Amino acid sequence: MSTKSVAIRRVTGDRPSPFMLAIAGDSAAGKTTLTRGLVEALSDAGVSALCVDDYHRYDRDERRGLPFSPLHPACNYLGIMEQHLQLLATGEPILKPVYDHHDGTLDRPVLVEPAANVVVEGLLPLHTRLSRACFDLSVYLDPPEEIRRAWKVKRDTRDRGYTEEQVLADLAKREPDSAAFIRPQRRWADVVVRFAPIEQRGEAERSLLSATVLLRPTAPHPDLTAFLGEDTREAIHIKLIRDDDGKPVDALHVHGYATRDATRRVEEAIWASLGIHNPFPEELGEVEPGGLRSEPLAVVQLILLYHVLRARQFHGSELEIVP
Amino acid sequence: MSTKSVAIRRVTGDRPSPFMLAIAGDSAAGKTTLTRGLVEALSDAGVSALCVDDYHRYDRDERRGLPFSPLHPACNYLGIMEQHLQLLATGEPILKPVYDHHDGTLDRPVLVEPAANVVVEGLLPLHTRLSRACFDLSVYLDPPEEIRRAWKVKRDTRDRGYTEEQVLADLAKREPDSAAFIRPQRRWADVVVRFAPIEQRGEAERSLLSATVLLRPTAPHPDLTAFLGEDTREAIHIKLIRDDDGKPVDALHVHGYATRDATRRVEEAIWASLGIHNPFPEELGEVEPGGLRSEPLAVVQLILLYHVLRARQFHGSELEIVP
Repeated sequence: MSTKSVAIRRVTGDRPSPFMLAIAGDSAAGKTTLTRGLVEALSDAGVSALCVDDYHRYDRDERRGLPFSPLHPACNYLGIMEQHLQLLATGEPILKPVYDHHDGTLDRPVLVEPAANVVVEGLLPLHTRLSRACFDLSVYLDPPEEIRRAWKVKRDTRDRGYTEEQVLADLAKREPDSAAFIRPQRRWADVVVRFAPIEQRGEAERSLLSATVLLRPTAPHPDLTAFLGEDTREAIHIKLIRDDDGKPVDALHVHGYATRDATRRVEEAIWASLGIHNPFPEELGEVEPGGLRSEPLAVVQLILLYHVLRARQFHGSELEIVP
Repeated sequence: MSTKSVAIRRVTGDRPSPFMLAIAGDSAAGKTTLTRGLVEALSDAGVSALCVDDYHRYDRDERRGLPFSPLHPACNYLGIMEQHLQLLATGEPILKPVYDHHDGTLDRPVLVEPAANVVVEGLLPLHTRLSRACFDLSVYLDPPEEIRRAWKVKRDTRDRGYTEEQVLADLAKREPDSAAFIRPQRRWADVVVRFAPIEQRGEAERSLLSATVLLRPTAPHPDLTAFLGEDTREAIHIKLIRDDDGKPVDALHVHGYATRDATRRVEEAIWASLGIHNPFPEELGEVEPGGLRSEPLAVVQLILLYHVLRARQFHGSELEIVP
């Protein structure tokens, strides 16, 4: 065996590499809610969903004396996260580390084998150049900070056993790392999604939120102007704006009070443009499984689904979506 | 980020890929003893040592109902082991799974970053074609079964909390998988090492063992005939034989009763041939740290060290071995 010949195995045959979709954003920014309906709609096409917040170097005990929060790159094996994303993007399995968010311990790793579509959500998937290069489409969730803080308090007191004071103290401690490492990822996303109340109209925070979706010209988005008509203008409209950095971007607004009828006309037009003869996937728009619906959420999920399905068509694969 | 460009990072500059050495063999075949002195002698040159017996799919509890022993490939993530060996061979770090041999649980993984030399020991490192291709040199430890069984009983009752009956039952249960998956790896090794008493001379099992070392023409071994003289013939000799499969191989015999003087002359000649001006590494030959010495063990370790150091010279690197 003295002649060393090392070969990284590649996907063979005409099976395309997985479609890789990143959903990045800070803690409680809505990543799980956005991902859930999308993954359900893709279940028959084949989808692997994973969270990349498990690459911690230290468990909760070990972190106590450290000067940085778990958001800090130095607190994570980001080189290994990069390597694992590259392996998944080339169709290879990984043995992914597991962090138990309930008791803060590092657990035995799990095997992840990439399906035809891989949805990766987490805090830092767009932090490095090589990790970004692994994604066919990247999304950043960008809620106003006060909304995110309210969501985080609600979730962590309900599901993770913290008191409100603990959550607020944790938010304060993480803020420098959020500002330095999480929020800068916004600039790398093809799609930036902001669910927020529309202040000018006096909507209360507790009402259904509207969505502002920035569609950067870095990805082949659907031509939404073709789908938006006189009859939907009140519910959905699109305009060309300059982003905070001065760069041009399409801004799609979906109002929280949009009627199901108005959004449904747009949704079905986008769906029909894909040439798929299956019924429209009804999982889209569910804020809780089987519970409250949000039309803005459904539209955002549909735009992402459009990208995934269009890429598969581009690869010439059989489409067998049965929602 | 819609233009996907995935690149597996490579070692840059003129740093050579790590020298990859495999030490394969069944449980208690002597892998740890052989590896220890070698790793110590390489510590200044840079060495990573790892065991690839941690890629278990199941912990001890989960294995109870299963029809195969932990030696069976189906009981292990061998595809991930292959992937990790390939990554190490190309200079990349891995997050290696960890199996706790004391309590039989799967633990949090550890980061392994390959040094200039990587010594991989374990039960199945030569099982697949792609894993074999990762090694610059591969060794198989091939003690007679009755010797290995005695070693295993001694170790597992002393260090791992088993009774002799439990160890013997375990050996019986593992035998079909040893025969099917472990022992066939012998044919893929560049060096096959058998420590054994020489029956013809009536040596008792408890005396120092002799070594028979098969040097297959698959690797650039040192020309030992140049180092063996009249004065060492009683202690060390080499002859051309046919292996069990009929293929030609050099068989080096080092007698357990060889004097330190006789082996030392050979060892120093091999060492000098490398053109290294450091003192001979005294760690070689220790059966236990700081304890009993075995001249046959020292010779075997020196031959492996020769391969590692010669490969580094071939790459034109600076050699800074300070044993």
